[in-house]
Amino acid sequence: MTHPYADDSLTLHTDLYQINMAEAYWADGMHERKAVFELFFRKLPFGNGYAIFAGLERILEFIREFHFTESDLAYLKDQGYRDDFLDYLKDLRFTGNIYSMQEGELAFPQVPLVRVEASLIEAQLIETALLNIVNFQTLIATKSSRIKQVVKDEIVMEFGSRRAHEMDAAIWGARAAYIGGAEATSNVRTGKLFGIPISGTHAHSMVQAYKSEYEAFHAYAKRHRKCVFLVDTYDTLNIGVPTAIQVAKELGDKIDFIGIRLDSGDIAFLSKEARRLLDEAGFTEAKIVVSNDLDEYTILNLKAQGAKVDMWGIGTKLITAYDQPALGAVYKLVSIENEHGEMEDTIKISSTTEKVTTPGEKRIYRIIDKENGKAEGDYITMKDEDPNAEERIKMFHPVHTFVSKFVTNFEAIDLQHHVVKDGEIIYENPTLPDMQAFAKQNLEVLWDEYKRSLNPEEYPVDLSQKCWDNKMRNIQEVKDMVDAHKSSGGRVK
Amino acid sequence: MTHPYADDSLTLHTDLYQINMAEAYWADGMHERKAVFELFFRKLPFGNGYAIFAGLERILEFIREFHFTESDLAYLKDQGYRDDFLDYLKDLRFTGNIYSMQEGELAFPQVPLVRVEASLIEAQLIETALLNIVNFQTLIATKSSRIKQVVKDEIVMEFGSRRAHEMDAAIWGARAAYIGGAEATSNVRTGKLFGIPISGTHAHSMVQAYKSEYEAFHAYAKRHRKCVFLVDTYDTLNIGVPTAIQVAKELGDKIDFIGIRLDSGDIAFLSKEARRLLDEAGFTEAKIVVSNDLDEYTILNLKAQGAKVDMWGIGTKLITAYDQPALGAVYKLVSIENEHGEMEDTIKISSTTEKVTTPGEKRIYRIIDKENGKAEGDYITMKDEDPNAEERIKMFHPVHTFVSKFVTNFEAIDLQHHVVKDGEIIYENPTLPDMQAFAKQNLEVLWDEYKRSLNPEEYPVDLSQKCWDNKMRNIQEVKDMVDAHKSSGGRVK
Repeated sequence: MTHPYADDSLTLHTDLYQINMAEAYWADGMHERKAVFELFFRKLPFGNGYAIFAGLERILEFIREFHFTESDLAYLKDQGYRDDFLDYLKDLRFTGNIYSMQEGELAFPQVPLVRVEASLIEAQLIETALLNIVNFQTLIATKSSRIKQVVKDEIVMEFGSRRAHEMDAAIWGARAAYIGGAEATSNVRTGKLFGIPISGTHAHSMVQAYKSEYEAFHAYAKRHRKCVFLVDTYDTLNIGVPTAIQVAKELGDKIDFIGIRLDSGDIAFLSKEARRLLDEAGFTEAKIVVSNDLDEYTILNLKAQGAKVDMWGIGTKLITAYDQPALGAVYKLVSIENEHGEMEDTIKISSTTEKVTTPGEKRIYRIIDKENGKAEGDYITMKDEDPNAEERIKMFHPVHTFVSKFVTNFEAIDLQHHVVKDGEIIYENPTLPDMQAFAKQNLEVLWDEYKRSLNPEEYPVDLSQKCWDNKMRNIQEVKDMVDAHKSSGGRVK
Repeated sequence: MTHPYADDSLTLHTDLYQINMAEAYWADGMHERKAVFELFFRKLPFGNGYAIFAGLERILEFIREFHFTESDLAYLKDQGYRDDFLDYLKDLRFTGNIYSMQEGELAFPQVPLVRVEASLIEAQLIETALLNIVNFQTLIATKSSRIKQVVKDEIVMEFGSRRAHEMDAAIWGARAAYIGGAEATSNVRTGKLFGIPISGTHAHSMVQAYKSEYEAFHAYAKRHRKCVFLVDTYDTLNIGVPTAIQVAKELGDKIDFIGIRLDSGDIAFLSKEARRLLDEAGFTEAKIVVSNDLDEYTILNLKAQGAKVDMWGIGTKLITAYDQPALGAVYKLVSIENEHGEMEDTIKISSTTEKVTTPGEKRIYRIIDKENGKAEGDYITMKDEDPNAEERIKMFHPVHTFVSKFVTNFEAIDLQHHVVKDGEIIYENPTLPDMQAFAKQNLEVLWDEYKRSLNPEEYPVDLSQKCWDNKMRNIQEVKDMVDAHKSSGGRVK
């Protein structure tokens, strides 16, 4: 492919309106006003009771590399942007502050996952990339965790590269799946880049190439000690499994006969019969690997039918988050510096009530009961509040405000970590196994009622009284403004 | 991020089993056997009547770059692969042949989109990447075309970057959407890399930053001639639209007032009211842009309600193919060289009957009626058949074989182009506007019954008599083999 411009930058990985707003701000002298944006989602995916945050490492990489290259500027010039603005962009770097949850943290609706405090122009120019990264990676980490809740102690392997949405999705998705609890991936490049265990043996085509399972298994075993034989190319129970057993017996100690893989047909029936055949042949330790359009629903069903499965290879449904392939996280301006250098709240009103934003500079705490170590809920305060200084806090539902409780003997944990300070990355990414362990440990803090895959209880995410009062005041101000305009015409619905 | 290995190659963008099979083939001296693989899908997405093939340009890029880098080999060595095999991989390039549909071609179930004729090892090592590329890009091109069928003459803009599955999906998806009929994208990097028109003005945050639409619109217009004002930040009909009209009047010829954008609320109602206000103010040419979780279903409904929309911004539902986020294309071995240097058919049997492959080296023709220029169906033959040499062909349903017709006065168009010859790329990619035009022109060949969005007729994809007989013969051979095994034990279901 002959690109007219070098593909040497991700900085233009943004929606055009960000560039156009940036230019307007810059021309109007607004661009250096300090702004606070929050990144959050409004609804949990898959009807799940929680989400697992992922994407921070990729965000930090993006921030570190953020600058307009010569080719970016050449393209924008060809699009009609003028030199004065392009000259300004040339030296632009991200110099603001970012506060973020750690990867593997539990996330809930309305709770900001990431907070950006930066000049208006910088905060705006990174929006699209941040949303793109967090929406996808958090979605897949959550799907993986949800599957793992059903699978429990057996092994989950991510097998979806061929159905992923292009190459980045395959590798970052496999990484997110690992954070959520998957043990391995089939994608070799993901193993190379992130150190995740990789998994895979052979395909049907190998059996076809040799015309027989016997020849194919032997050929595979000549070079590979660890063997999982795929047994469903022609006839699983009549040929596949008996041949796997025969080859395993013939080779004895020359190989580690890990087990067999089933990739089609009636998995519940076939796995039980295969188990019986393996056991009868003395291979009671041999594993049964299954892969065939699986997700948490089919797995639950297979388990209910007593399927004998030791390892689950999950492809399409995990890597595409098939039943809900998008998380709708948004990035909203909550506070901006005015012409006097003071921070002022901002709000976005909508006739869809849950789309009304919560204005102002805020903090996010997870309230942990000191006695049992369980989470009482998340608690959003204004930035000058410190719940840990309180004996007792009142937590109330932000819509049905009469639903409330007083909480004492708690610890309030600040969920957002300072990860970028004045443009400098000050956060060191944990290892991926540590992120996976962190996610697992976070789930321990959650009551089981929030973790079940069907109809979980709603986890409380509450505003402090001050935060709620402030939101109501801001809404009233907009209402007053709208009323003032009404006399000037326009039909009211 | 500190990667232990350089991210300098896509060659390991493959499932591990491909590498393991490759090693077994190589060790067994099987690796240079000539193999023929076909890439095809079994079911159309979205209940649509056709698919639009996309992904070839990316495939050719992958093939051109295909080789194991030092870092790839170092990683594999660390995974325990031995030097002899790694030495072999070091010099491996793709030296085979690829035949492919052109991007923008109509694709149907069971019709191979891509055919790979190469050594067994090379054909196997490119499988995962080819599937990953074609599955995603074809899916999005198809979704885009489907949306365009409903939108018709209005403008479609791809707005989905923030919900795309990571960065590659955003750019390759936007490109595929363009091939399918979308006129523009919001993603600036896509514009830079592919030359697709980009589109976008400003967001709610700009109105919030200025605290008023009046100030924000004026600030935007100071620097941008073409203005689309977003009118739903506070109150669409009472403030947003009247303010857009006021600013447009104040600025007069100083700007091109393109129109307004609605991003929330009751679009049917708001667009009609906004149209009325704009018309009353004399802005009859002003466009109404709409963007709010749209897809072909909501668009059809909005049109039925008489919504006044000139341009549709489609985000999540297009870029993620929300209602069916995966195309299940597979890559199957249909023929392989035996030890005597002759090509032999191979077949994969499955209890799921549509998963049984069609063996042998084949050709794919679209049968065009010379009289009316319309497609009679696709016709799959063995490679030595030439339908154009026939006066009359019999086309029959490959499952319900009694459904048949004789076709005369036709032209049989070979759908697969030779794009890689002995490892050399011999195909020149058309421009993207040409691909888009090609897709549009292909749709002209299709009767309307195949193009409706709900319950389209099933387009005929038929096997020649010879191809069908060959398939039956291969199936019988496997059945005989299974019968021969039955005496050796294993329970038959």
